[in-house]
Amino acid sequence: MYILPSSLCYNRISRKLRDAGDAGRNRCILQFAIMKHVYSSEQFTTGFITELFALTDKIRANPGDFQDALKGKVIATLFYEPSTRTRLSFESAAVILGAQVISTENAREFSSAIKGETLEDTLKVVEGYADVIIMRHFEDDSAERAQKVLSVPFINAGSGKREHPTQALLDLYTIYREFGRLNNLRVACVGDLLRGRTVYSLVKSMMLFENNSFIFIAPENSRIHADMKNKLNMSNIDFIETDMLDESILRKVDVVYMTRIQKERFDNEAEYLRAKGKLILTNKLVNCMKDDAIVMHPLPRVDEIDVEVDANPRARYFTQAHNGLWVRMAILAGYKNA
Amino acid sequence: MYILPSSLCYNRISRKLRDAGDAGRNRCILQFAIMKHVYSSEQFTTGFITELFALTDKIRANPGDFQDALKGKVIATLFYEPSTRTRLSFESAAVILGAQVISTENAREFSSAIKGETLEDTLKVVEGYADVIIMRHFEDDSAERAQKVLSVPFINAGSGKREHPTQALLDLYTIYREFGRLNNLRVACVGDLLRGRTVYSLVKSMMLFENNSFIFIAPENSRIHADMKNKLNMSNIDFIETDMLDESILRKVDVVYMTRIQKERFDNEAEYLRAKGKLILTNKLVNCMKDDAIVMHPLPRVDEIDVEVDANPRARYFTQAHNGLWVRMAILAGYKNA
Amino acid sequence: MYILPSSLCYNRISRKLRDAGDAGRNRCILQFAIMKHVYSSEQFTTGFITELFALTDKIRANPGDFQDALKGKVIATLFYEPSTRTRLSFESAAVILGAQVISTENAREFSSAIKGETLEDTLKVVEGYADVIIMRHFEDDSAERAQKVLSVPFINAGSGKREHPTQALLDLYTIYREFGRLNNLRVACVGDLLRGRTVYSLVKSMMLFENNSFIFIAPENSRIHADMKNKLNMSNIDFIETDMLDESILRKVDVVYMTRIQKERFDNEAEYLRAKGKLILTNKLVNCMKDDAIVMHPLPRVDEIDVEVDANPRARYFTQAHNGLWVRMAILAGYKNA
Repeated sequence: MYILPSSLCYNRISRKLRDAGDAGRNRCILQFAIMKHVYSSEQFTTGFITELFALTDKIRANPGDFQDALKGKVIATLFYEPSTRTRLSFESAAVILGAQVISTENAREFSSAIKGETLEDTLKVVEGYADVIIMRHFEDDSAERAQKVLSVPFINAGSGKREHPTQALLDLYTIYREFGRLNNLRVACVGDLLRGRTVYSLVKSMMLFENNSFIFIAPENSRIHADMKNKLNMSNIDFIETDMLDESILRKVDVVYMTRIQKERFDNEAEYLRAKGKLILTNKLVNCMKDDAIVMHPLPRVDEIDVEVDANPRARYFTQAHNGLWVRMAILAGYKNA
Repeated sequence: MYILPSSLCYNRISRKLRDAGDAGRNRCILQFAIMKHVYSSEQFTTGFITELFALTDKIRANPGDFQDALKGKVIATLFYEPSTRTRLSFESAAVILGAQVISTENAREFSSAIKGETLEDTLKVVEGYADVIIMRHFEDDSAERAQKVLSVPFINAGSGKREHPTQALLDLYTIYREFGRLNNLRVACVGDLLRGRTVYSLVKSMMLFENNSFIFIAPENSRIHADMKNKLNMSNIDFIETDMLDESILRKVDVVYMTRIQKERFDNEAEYLRAKGKLILTNKLVNCMKDDAIVMHPLPRVDEIDVEVDANPRARYFTQAHNGLWVRMAILAGYKNA
Repeated sequence: MYILPSSLCYNRISRKLRDAGDAGRNRCILQFAIMKHVYSSEQFTTGFITELFALTDKIRANPGDFQDALKGKVIATLFYEPSTRTRLSFESAAVILGAQVISTENAREFSSAIKGETLEDTLKVVEGYADVIIMRHFEDDSAERAQKVLSVPFINAGSGKREHPTQALLDLYTIYREFGRLNNLRVACVGDLLRGRTVYSLVKSMMLFENNSFIFIAPENSRIHADMKNKLNMSNIDFIETDMLDESILRKVDVVYMTRIQKERFDNEAEYLRAKGKLILTNKLVNCMKDDAIVMHPLPRVDEIDVEVDANPRARYFTQAHNGLWVRMAILAGYKNA
């Protein structure tokens, strides 16, 4: 069985059993090869990404080898706000690896949260029932707080508006999978670049690799944050900004990463419609792109990608969503038996 | 292991694995012997029903032979409106066959549905995480749309007011199980025959078999639709209509199929009470029925069947609900390993 | 494999399979060694408690021996009000024992309950899909009604304001585990003693064992009910009442059982604050306790135990919550294979 070249060894069930006076089930020692908690895209390094994607490829190539990787383990999914696609992909990943899942769709209505219990107390109770906790929470600092208090491995499935590290990883994996590399790529990011968290994570992660460049295409009032531009400038990374999704740009890029424009952010309907009209990806536009270029979107989409594009050979947004299963399997498999 | 005499061969996991460059888990080839999607009672033929019920009987006789039928498979239950009994019976059927279940109780509150994602997009994402999708949806055309877009097998667990094909199948199976046949039967359908979908599916399915006849007992304002009567007339099938549930009728029937009368459909309380009073099944009435006649109800009941009837040897409504487990196991087992 | 010295033999799956004309899976005979239903703390005897805790210790010592105890069984968790910690601990217990779980987080929104179906009808349907039913319900008499109607084993996971028998058992087990006995103990119960159900169950259960005494510490308007005091007096059991959580008391006790004070019960803010101020457990107070004394709390806590106490070696409230897993495993294991 594949064993990760790990140094950090995490040992949860065996601790629980030892506390219970038992040594019998020591085949259940957990080994988290990558990092104990996955809570922020700030943790990512080229080494981590490379190792994780190698494992992801290995699982895709021989999933049967991993069907008992998490046998005997219990994974808790605590969702304080609904995010069914993320939850279902994590739960599918867990059960394909042989784990069992305990789950709450809407933890916000926990009687205990309503009664004034802190997130820390809730987590310290639940860690008694599960070997890994996967949480989505509406507060920006929730993942940071969770990883501080938990002794079982914690995976952030989205915290407030700030972090969604496994989304960032599946985005990166989709690019890696298509191009066989994460360097020397030109990426156009389109939509509301001011508010969406996915574009920030993507750009920051791609900055770790050499010679990537960016084109930011956004309406006047939704441009990418100055902080990000400063970061890019300080790292001497090329980027340009525009508010127009036109053929001259699309011809040059390897990746178009579309995001939703949120109507409610605009001052008036007319301004919204004007902005939006310039940022809809049609088949005509996609056909200007290079043959091996790809179209991505974190989904859900509303109408920023015309449905006719779905059949275009460059469309990768559903593949991208499906890649979430493989990447999350790889993350969870990091907690498998030694 | 029992192999269905199937021609249509559906192959999902193996496709997914082949995409992933793998041939190793080809023991996971799915074989859906019956039909790829089960989305409408319009699909039913005598051949399908006969084959399915033979399999249902086989599973009941030797459930142990099927305990690994869906081993390694992931079944997603997407419920856009709550229907706990239907969902739980599907999930129980799935896990008894060795599958794992990922589930959402209230998909309507999907963040992505709220954000304006189409049902088609949602399904195209979720099919990446599951081998079979079971959906309940509040829109009449949802199942039709789902089966068009999905490449994994789809089972309709109720779509709007129109279709609930597995309810129709468990109703039919209950009759088949009791009488050993689905022809030469006299069936009384009682209650709100205008709005309930179960009676339509039952009558249409029983029209496929020879020499059945029907008695429709409904309040004046809730009579069976003219379309159905035309259909019966054109097929030369005997039926009568009345608004009275009396002994002279009950003596003659093989099956009484009760349904709920919905108070809110009536113009005024007095009219409702008058209608309802004539359509309550008491033990006194049931005792007029033939010894081998049966009382059915799709449940939930309110008060249209007196609780004293529960102990009557002709009562079959709880058996009928429990038959849902076996019939759904048979449907799911159609997707088992070749 | 460990077999309980049981007389009562409950046999669900085998009955279902026999009804289905099958004898093949008779290894699935369920044996409920303890009692058929666990619905009320009134059922507890010293014999039951002793037997259950012996089994709990056995499972803790060798959990691996029990990993297939419930293999092939389906456990339904029906929660009519959210109680995620209780549900997750039951579900974790079930899957660790090899069972599969079907679950509803918010059964109150059952379409069938909304449509006017009785609890009895719902349960009679669901028992066709599961081998054991675990229910939380908002009505006081729900558990009593459930155990009357069900032929599959039923476990009460909290019924209205009255009963939560498995909470009582995990409280008792925590004391038993710490002191190796359930007699000769002095227990201080602190907080809203009038309304909380946990204190009543704890005191009544500890009255079954010899020579325990109690100190009830509550605000003026939240004192323990006169009925309980009468019961204690009639059994010649020592107790005292006070409204002050002070060092002189804490020095003498073996257990401090803290509970939440519910602000909304008080007539005015000033009175609430005055009461509450006297009933907050700080590290300074805890350090007055005997070295082997312990602090318990059914959780969730708000601020009645200062978070600095969490690190005190006498704090046991998270251990207590985690003990819920082991005790619930023992209860469920009572339904394992013969």
